[in-house]
Amino acid sequence: MRTVNVNASENYNVYIEQGIIDNCGEIVGGLVRGRRCVIISDSNVAPLYAQRVADSLKAAGFRTALFEIEAGESSKNPDNLVKAAELCVEYGLTRSDVLVALGGGVVTDLGGLCGALYQRGIAVVQIPTSLLAMVDSSVGGKTAVNLTSGKNMFGVFYQPRAVLCDSTLLRTLKEEEFANGMAEVIKYAALKGGRILEIIKGNMENNLDELIEECVKIKRDYVCDDEFDKGVRQFLNFGHTFGHAIERISNFSVAHGSAVSIGMCIMAESCEKNSLCSKEDKELLLSLCKKYRLPTSCKYSSDDIFMASMSDKKRESYDINIVLFKGFGDCEIKKILLDDLVVYLYKGMGEE
Amino acid sequence: MRTVNVNASENYNVYIEQGIIDNCGEIVGGLVRGRRCVIISDSNVAPLYAQRVADSLKAAGFRTALFEIEAGESSKNPDNLVKAAELCVEYGLTRSDVLVALGGGVVTDLGGLCGALYQRGIAVVQIPTSLLAMVDSSVGGKTAVNLTSGKNMFGVFYQPRAVLCDSTLLRTLKEEEFANGMAEVIKYAALKGGRILEIIKGNMENNLDELIEECVKIKRDYVCDDEFDKGVRQFLNFGHTFGHAIERISNFSVAHGSAVSIGMCIMAESCEKNSLCSKEDKELLLSLCKKYRLPTSCKYSSDDIFMASMSDKKRESYDINIVLFKGFGDCEIKKILLDDLVVYLYKGMGEE
Repeated sequence: MRTVNVNASENYNVYIEQGIIDNCGEIVGGLVRGRRCVIISDSNVAPLYAQRVADSLKAAGFRTALFEIEAGESSKNPDNLVKAAELCVEYGLTRSDVLVALGGGVVTDLGGLCGALYQRGIAVVQIPTSLLAMVDSSVGGKTAVNLTSGKNMFGVFYQPRAVLCDSTLLRTLKEEEFANGMAEVIKYAALKGGRILEIIKGNMENNLDELIEECVKIKRDYVCDDEFDKGVRQFLNFGHTFGHAIERISNFSVAHGSAVSIGMCIMAESCEKNSLCSKEDKELLLSLCKKYRLPTSCKYSSDDIFMASMSDKKRESYDINIVLFKGFGDCEIKKILLDDLVVYLYKGMGEE
Repeated sequence: MRTVNVNASENYNVYIEQGIIDNCGEIVGGLVRGRRCVIISDSNVAPLYAQRVADSLKAAGFRTALFEIEAGESSKNPDNLVKAAELCVEYGLTRSDVLVALGGGVVTDLGGLCGALYQRGIAVVQIPTSLLAMVDSSVGGKTAVNLTSGKNMFGVFYQPRAVLCDSTLLRTLKEEEFANGMAEVIKYAALKGGRILEIIKGNMENNLDELIEECVKIKRDYVCDDEFDKGVRQFLNFGHTFGHAIERISNFSVAHGSAVSIGMCIMAESCEKNSLCSKEDKELLLSLCKKYRLPTSCKYSSDDIFMASMSDKKRESYDINIVLFKGFGDCEIKKILLDDLVVYLYKGMGEE
């Protein structure tokens, strides 16, 4: 079994092993004293995997209840959050018990927040079922639901008690969902190069667990250095400044991974124009995005993207930190004026 | 100005001064970079004090918006919590800005939680307007709202950036609300004796600020030793084990302070019967409760109270920590079997 230890404000492990969900009861049972568990999942994942998780928990002596939400981003709302917590009360969950979040980013974000809030915090075990959730959402402690007019506006930092990654679950993942996760994997390759870059350049089928482990380690390192997202953790925003803007313009019809992919490609193009990165590295980045069925450009104009970046509701000031791509394993955080963002967009989108 | 420094996971000050709400803008302005403020208050307090708070904030360069909830415990719900957060989004509140909670425990609990959740945490300044909130709720970082079937079941630990106590606001407090706060003051006297006991034995009118300061210091000491309520902070539960049960039996028609007062008196009676405290100390405790218009007994039977204690939804195990009263300044935490609670009740209620 591959194990990545995360030593943040709480110390916990990410376990990566094929078939691990059938042993989740044993692992969860070693983490908490109580023997009640609420499983939060969604309408795509629950029919496929909830029973296996429940069976394993029952074999370890747990009583379990399932809270199932409709699959999709619109379920990540305060209403479902409160309903999940009400179920925890009805089920008599105490601070010694545990909540298991079984699903993609929507479920792990909502489940994590529910665990943080219920009785001011109970144990949460994340079982991510999408590649994106395995390499990104379930590690680092960011939990949230969306408000009517603001994505991820309602949440806290709360570390899980453990994360279980079972790459066999990815076999049932839709192709576009897998691509979504690959955008973050390519981002890690851009940030650190090394083994991840090697794997994704080749045939990664046989190296999926190692790939997940390497990605989790990178995220772990950033999170441990900067749990509350005030410094180096911002490297993880590579591709995301433009990506978030593109998501917003499209009213979230462009998937997160696609938007991040486009954002990385615009930045790489811009950096090449500014002689910050080589043509070869830029081309490799673009070809990797294409290889994993991710878009490298969009129909929106640089002005559209700029305006959407300006209106980001989380924007605190007239400065912004962007992540420059100077080559694989060689990115740099740079603070610029918000107004100067448009220059990077013009160059990156060939509109200068 | 009296200042109590709280050095918990965040370092902040509790300021105690008459008329301080008219200078709140200056204080808040020194704590945050932003200049937007959402004020959360209720329908009793807002008409009396919200304008003065807003005026002071405006004089310090702030733009302010008011979110007003109906006065009363039933407003402490997830619905109002989310509405408050939605207003923060609409108002464009960023992580550099601030949320002010102006009111009693309902408002400070709900406001604190809103601040903890909005964008994963913004600055919160508490301006408690009830004695209970000044000496208890607003210090220590416990925030929460109620779920349908569980009081304070949905919350987090989140420390405010500052707490401003203006005892002149207590002049408009209803007599029974003042008594509510006095139950906690008497509790501090029981735990520590000393200056608080002296003040409340005498004429406390002229020593109100000193009294608040002394209470806040005691709470501060417990909170700093045990921020997450796993050990010595449980001393603060003196009178609360039975008190919470009485509140629940009465469906919360018995006020928190009244219930705590009854709980303390039952325990003192029980401890005297067990030769743990002197008759004089028990009598003094009862007379103080009476002096400050608090009940010392209730119409419920010991069996009623015992059953309600058993069904506490936060109960984790068959053990329970109770706080024994051995005299003023001499209390003790004792772990007993939940079943043995009934023995203390029988003795404390003269039913043995």
